Amino acid sequence: MTSDLDRTPVTVVGLGPMGLALAAALLERGHPLTVWNRTPEKADELVGKGARRAATVAEAASASPLTIMCLKDYDTMYAVFDAAGDALRGRVLVNLNSGTPNEARAAVDWADERGVAYLDGAIMVQPPLVGHPGSVFLYSGSQDVFDRHRATLASLGDPRYLGADPGLAVLYNTALLDLMYAATNGFLHASALVASAGVPAATFAGLALDWFLPTVVQASLAEQAPALDAGHYPGDLGTLEMNRNALEHITLTSREQGVHDDQPRLMQGIAERAIAEGHGDRNYLAVFEVFKKANAARA
Amino acid sequence: MTSDLDRTPVTVVGLGPMGLALAAALLERGHPLTVWNRTPEKADELVGKGARRAATVAEAASASPLTIMCLKDYDTMYAVFDAAGDALRGRVLVNLNSGTPNEARAAVDWADERGVAYLDGAIMVQPPLVGHPGSVFLYSGSQDVFDRHRATLASLGDPRYLGADPGLAVLYNTALLDLMYAATNGFLHASALVASAGVPAATFAGLALDWFLPTVVQASLAEQAPALDAGHYPGDLGTLEMNRNALEHITLTSREQGVHDDQPRLMQGIAERAIAEGHGDRNYLAVFEVFKKANAARA
Repeated sequence: MTSDLDRTPVTVVGLGPMGLALAAALLERGHPLTVWNRTPEKADELVGKGARRAATVAEAASASPLTIMCLKDYDTMYAVFDAAGDALRGRVLVNLNSGTPNEARAAVDWADERGVAYLDGAIMVQPPLVGHPGSVFLYSGSQDVFDRHRATLASLGDPRYLGADPGLAVLYNTALLDLMYAATNGFLHASALVASAGVPAATFAGLALDWFLPTVVQASLAEQAPALDAGHYPGDLGTLEMNRNALEHITLTSREQGVHDDQPRLMQGIAERAIAEGHGDRNYLAVFEVFKKANAARA
Repeated sequence: MTSDLDRTPVTVVGLGPMGLALAAALLERGHPLTVWNRTPEKADELVGKGARRAATVAEAASASPLTIMCLKDYDTMYAVFDAAGDALRGRVLVNLNSGTPNEARAAVDWADERGVAYLDGAIMVQPPLVGHPGSVFLYSGSQDVFDRHRATLASLGDPRYLGADPGLAVLYNTALLDLMYAATNGFLHASALVASAGVPAATFAGLALDWFLPTVVQASLAEQAPALDAGHYPGDLGTLEMNRNALEHITLTSREQGVHDDQPRLMQGIAERAIAEGHGDRNYLAVFEVFKKANAARA
């Protein structure tokens, strides 16, 4: 079965940098490939490698049992495929653009009304890494669609099925980007602190990224993740009050060194909110309780 | 030489949880150990294992060529040792409490006036990991003092000498904690996002901490650290404008999911400031330029 599935004809709609990378990976794995893009010349190189260029979205969608799309957003998806009439009916559409969980859920209703089997997904790597076996692709929604096309999706990377809620893939994607920006900002702000004493970021990176982040931070978070789910934040090895003092120290040192202090000051404020909510003698992870609640209404 | 140095008599002043861990590690490596603490009973267990309890700081400091201290802060250090008269003159003091770079620099002047050889340091692990060969201890200031006592300091962990500026150890310490809190907050906020759809943090941790953080985020930051030092932020693979949109998306998704949005909103605001300063067509790392400058005066 796997070898048959590996040759499933595929249509790719949307040839931005990511769509081009998806199409190239499928061609390389031997899938008969049809492509469509609003600006047809984007397909020139793919056509030179054996892809078929469709003149319309309807023609593209009709050419394969499976269409993978990577357009700007959900509204663009609706506009593009509603103009293609019934071409997708009875076929499978895998959507890899980003959006919110509610948008992903609404897309399932849209697909159901048109008789389209729909799977929502998200790509966790940059275009140059598409096609590598370790590159994670997230999927959620119909497990049946995922199972039937898993081998084809494996041509793009490492396909992970997250669950039946179609909003999960874009939510995970957003959460992972959130982590990426926060960790990146942490490294950049810390590098600005040591730069104020003339230490190059490349020197600091040796200790910060090669030892501290993986060995101390990541290992401790991984160990404590189950405690988050249990709401169990024992303060015997250190309390939020102590962390608040440490964060105030980071804010004050930033000021003393002439470094921007909004970021440590916000973290200090979040710790203070957790303390105000009664978590002062628990450990730092209790700020999870602050994050899980929406902000109070802003004036 | 190394085996001689390994048996250097050491005094430890300050027996909080960290001081106790330092003392225990030194005893275990066979150093004759003298200890002092304001509350003498804190030393009971160490005395049972062979340590000598000094009645006064002067007696403690006179007992060894090297005193390692871990008190609350620099002011406490001044108060404790100024009460001990000339006991430290001609000897070595290694200070492992935390503070600001300016406080560390001022401590060198204080020590010079008293004829004390001084080394400033910082401990990057929790007390239970003190004594493990992989546990990093940072030192800065007199390289001569560091070199002479390196073997003894290695009884506590992995000693790293950062440079002649005595402020470097506490500055690195503050910067690494800054990174730790930012990365931790990133994981906690991202976990709150997926928790809003019923996903346990322990499930999310598998992807976020075992794959995404080390493979995607950390590897990319390590690769790009030299570009920070060069102020080289080419936008050909993605611009700050695109990152701003992604951060706005994270803020909006947080709101849609009923999750606290201060943290992504601050990151969005920092990206917007970098754009306002003319970095919009550069890549995300250009926010380093924002962090390196003090805040504009607040009203």
